[in-house]
Amino acid sequence: MSEAHYELTPIGTVRSPLTDRAAAPKQGYEGSPDPVVIEFVPGVLEGLEDIRSGDQMVVLTWLDRAHRDVLRTRPRDDPANPEVGVFSTRSPDRPNPIGLHVVEVLSTDRGRLQVRNLEALDGTPVIDLKPVLPGVPDG
Amino acid sequence: MSEAHYELTPIGTVRSPLTDRAAAPKQGYEGSPDPVVIEFVPGVLEGLEDIRSGDQMVVLTWLDRAHRDVLRTRPRDDPANPEVGVFSTRSPDRPNPIGLHVVEVLSTDRGRLQVRNLEALDGTPVIDLKPVLPGVPDG
Repeated sequence: MSEAHYELTPIGTVRSPLTDRAAAPKQGYEGSPDPVVIEFVPGVLEGLEDIRSGDQMVVLTWLDRAHRDVLRTRPRDDPANPEVGVFSTRSPDRPNPIGLHVVEVLSTDRGRLQVRNLEALDGTPVIDLKPVLPGVPDG
Repeated sequence: MSEAHYELTPIGTVRSPLTDRAAAPKQGYEGSPDPVVIEFVPGVLEGLEDIRSGDQMVVLTWLDRAHRDVLRTRPRDDPANPEVGVFSTRSPDRPNPIGLHVVEVLSTDRGRLQVRNLEALDGTPVIDLKPVLPGVPDG
């Protein structure tokens, strides 16, 4: 690891019925509890003002219950799968445990966004939110 | 802003001819200098072992020259555009300046990945690398 580091400040928190990592679906498309709420901190509300229901957004989270010392893993925690380098997987356990989720905004109410398709444990810090750009396959 | 914070440790660095933010294209699809190299730190090489040329990957970067106190901005820095909340844009200037790039791997040579389509300034820290999952529009 490099000596440099950078500091993330959460902009919000996931409020979800998912509280147990073992019970979480292994990939978002297998089902996430809908809707899930993101509660934003008061200091960033101005930045949310142009988000509308129906928007497709990328949510970046900090997977605060992940293990950061993992470099090889079995995809989906399945012992039948061979171990592979962690950067070829979406495992939460990785040096910088950033979650990437494509969600649909269902409703906005100032500091609260209801979204569909966010698989993250209750209390997970949200660190960024970006639009999905039409025509650009970069979620 | 919340009081909590989390520490990112770079896993690599972008080596690119792009050195000047003013000269950078405003969106990746308008053209990025190809190929660009990502140099990884020795401590994470095991995690890269299953990446192959041709793989489509999501690269997350820390846009270390961005301004973190921006909540409203004009898309693409164009004065003709109305100001909007920063979370409805891909502007690098945002509370946690994380860049999201979908790249194609051209070649791998242990700690060096040559990629196509990475628009980031020379020296930009790389913080994560994930596969693009087939069938899942989540970059």
